[in-house]
Amino acid sequence: MPDSSTPPPTGRQLYLPELPRLIPVAYHANAVQLETASNNWVRRFLGDCFAGEEELLRFLRQRNGLYGPLTVPNAEPEKALCVSDWYQLVNAVETIGAGSLLGGVVAGVKDGDSAGQPESSYLNAARDLFGRLVVGLSQAQRERLDQGLAALHAEVVSAVPALPPTDAPDLDTCLDRRAARMRYRVLGLLTEYAAAVDMSPFVGTPEFRELQAHACRQMIIVSDLLSYRTAQRKTTPMNSVRLLNERDGLPLQDAVDRLCELVEQYERAYIGARSRILATPLGNHPETRVYLVGLDQLVAGSQEFAYITPRHFGDGAVWDGTRSGWYSVDEPVTRLHRTDDHS
Amino acid sequence: MPDSSTPPPTGRQLYLPELPRLIPVAYHANAVQLETASNNWVRRFLGDCFAGEEELLRFLRQRNGLYGPLTVPNAEPEKALCVSDWYQLVNAVETIGAGSLLGGVVAGVKDGDSAGQPESSYLNAARDLFGRLVVGLSQAQRERLDQGLAALHAEVVSAVPALPPTDAPDLDTCLDRRAARMRYRVLGLLTEYAAAVDMSPFVGTPEFRELQAHACRQMIIVSDLLSYRTAQRKTTPMNSVRLLNERDGLPLQDAVDRLCELVEQYERAYIGARSRILATPLGNHPETRVYLVGLDQLVAGSQEFAYITPRHFGDGAVWDGTRSGWYSVDEPVTRLHRTDDHS
Repeated sequence: MPDSSTPPPTGRQLYLPELPRLIPVAYHANAVQLETASNNWVRRFLGDCFAGEEELLRFLRQRNGLYGPLTVPNAEPEKALCVSDWYQLVNAVETIGAGSLLGGVVAGVKDGDSAGQPESSYLNAARDLFGRLVVGLSQAQRERLDQGLAALHAEVVSAVPALPPTDAPDLDTCLDRRAARMRYRVLGLLTEYAAAVDMSPFVGTPEFRELQAHACRQMIIVSDLLSYRTAQRKTTPMNSVRLLNERDGLPLQDAVDRLCELVEQYERAYIGARSRILATPLGNHPETRVYLVGLDQLVAGSQEFAYITPRHFGDGAVWDGTRSGWYSVDEPVTRLHRTDDHS
Repeated sequence: MPDSSTPPPTGRQLYLPELPRLIPVAYHANAVQLETASNNWVRRFLGDCFAGEEELLRFLRQRNGLYGPLTVPNAEPEKALCVSDWYQLVNAVETIGAGSLLGGVVAGVKDGDSAGQPESSYLNAARDLFGRLVVGLSQAQRERLDQGLAALHAEVVSAVPALPPTDAPDLDTCLDRRAARMRYRVLGLLTEYAAAVDMSPFVGTPEFRELQAHACRQMIIVSDLLSYRTAQRKTTPMNSVRLLNERDGLPLQDAVDRLCELVEQYERAYIGARSRILATPLGNHPETRVYLVGLDQLVAGSQEFAYITPRHFGDGAVWDGTRSGWYSVDEPVTRLHRTDDHS
């Protein structure tokens, strides 16, 4: 129960347990400067896509510019900035709901020129971003990026259908479908880009596909756990907590507890799959080792980011490092009431 | 004039010029983590001093926890955290207007025990903070800290009087008085603390007093320039822009331009005074050189912080690295409209 020294929270209560955090997180040494620079990029290239200054500021308060510093903490600053800008672009498109505009952007960037494409801020932004990205990529990686962009287009134009949870497929099927989506495929590619390695010959092998599948499931469930309060009001994308609660009939707290167990299960499965790769001849390859460190940082950094971003805890939230506690699912900003703090 | 691609700002317009920035700024490699840890400290020790959760979050959104990472960027993380916590404590006391409570805190901390002092969150916070601080200080520095705390008490209890600007003393007198205040004296001491040097024998010499005076004036004016919009509504403390405008009758833009010239003048005077110290025998002393680097970082970091903190640009602001531009002094959040961005 909440610490008696804190005011009792109101509304329906939910307890967010500590997550295992078996993989250590690292921050880029230039994290603050990179976030500022990425915010500058958003204002410059995407500023006029928002309904107004207040909407733009609300978006910037999500701190998406920290995603690069958290997921590629050892990268050259300009590469970490690219990852932040990519993350901002994807989230801006989603926030603004501008999927229909993105077809031209994808086609324009993919064809290498914008002939026949209407000029748009998105096109300019994508052109600037991918112009910087492709410099560090092999031909095979460029083709994978193109596929990722095409998938981005498909994903944004025909997003996850807004089903009532009772009509949705089960958790396992949902996780598979979401893990297959572009966002996670491109993240793996950006991990290679930031670490300056090319894993194109290997990413399709069963060993790596298994590794990536565990990582994806861990990342999706962590994000769903921390964003449940805001996800309640949405019809899409399907949130794992809602699926177990509304589709499968688990009480809310049981759904959360079950998903926390799954986070640990997938995290351990990821670590096991990584160990098995390291034990094969491929594991002796320096690029493999660098890539696996990068994947660790992607998983651990995404989890840290999920606590930091006010997108999950609510606009106006400021993270103070608290990772567990009771909170009201009906309040506009998630406040985790610590149970172990009696100072 | 504002870039035609941005919506024209409304209300009275003011142009904030680029400041000279002759001293390079540095960020602590753990800046984000330190800010989070300092926010945790505020919630733990001072959380119940705020009127409610929303007031606490509004305070945390000021990002005062970045002050340590910006002003002592090379310090051990726990020392940078102390500087952040100090800065948060002083600003929390000011924000909450709890000066009257602070007498007991100062006496309690100074006497080394809290006998006869009513228990309070402030006392607990100060005890925790100064318990960590004094470990790194010499006896002479501890005495200087005591003097600083007594001055803090005097400053907070009998703050700068809320005069109408026309009754205020002139800019020069105001700057002298403000530079003499505790806040700046303790900052110099924290610079020594973070750099693990003891300048007690020297800080009172004319050479160092001159150096510190130039640094203080630069810091005060920079802060006043960036906080003018919010300072308009306050009666105290006296803001330099308001003094020149309301007391001396300078048009607002002329006042800003004049103060920008003064920033450069004091910055150059500071650099000159530093060079003269380095040319003396004292300048060969390693501790002197370390201390002077620390003062540089204090001046440059305070300036960077002044752009970042939403305390100056308004709650909800997110800095994107823009340092100059037109803005409306009547809008709730300062937005600098760039004039050189025609992309």
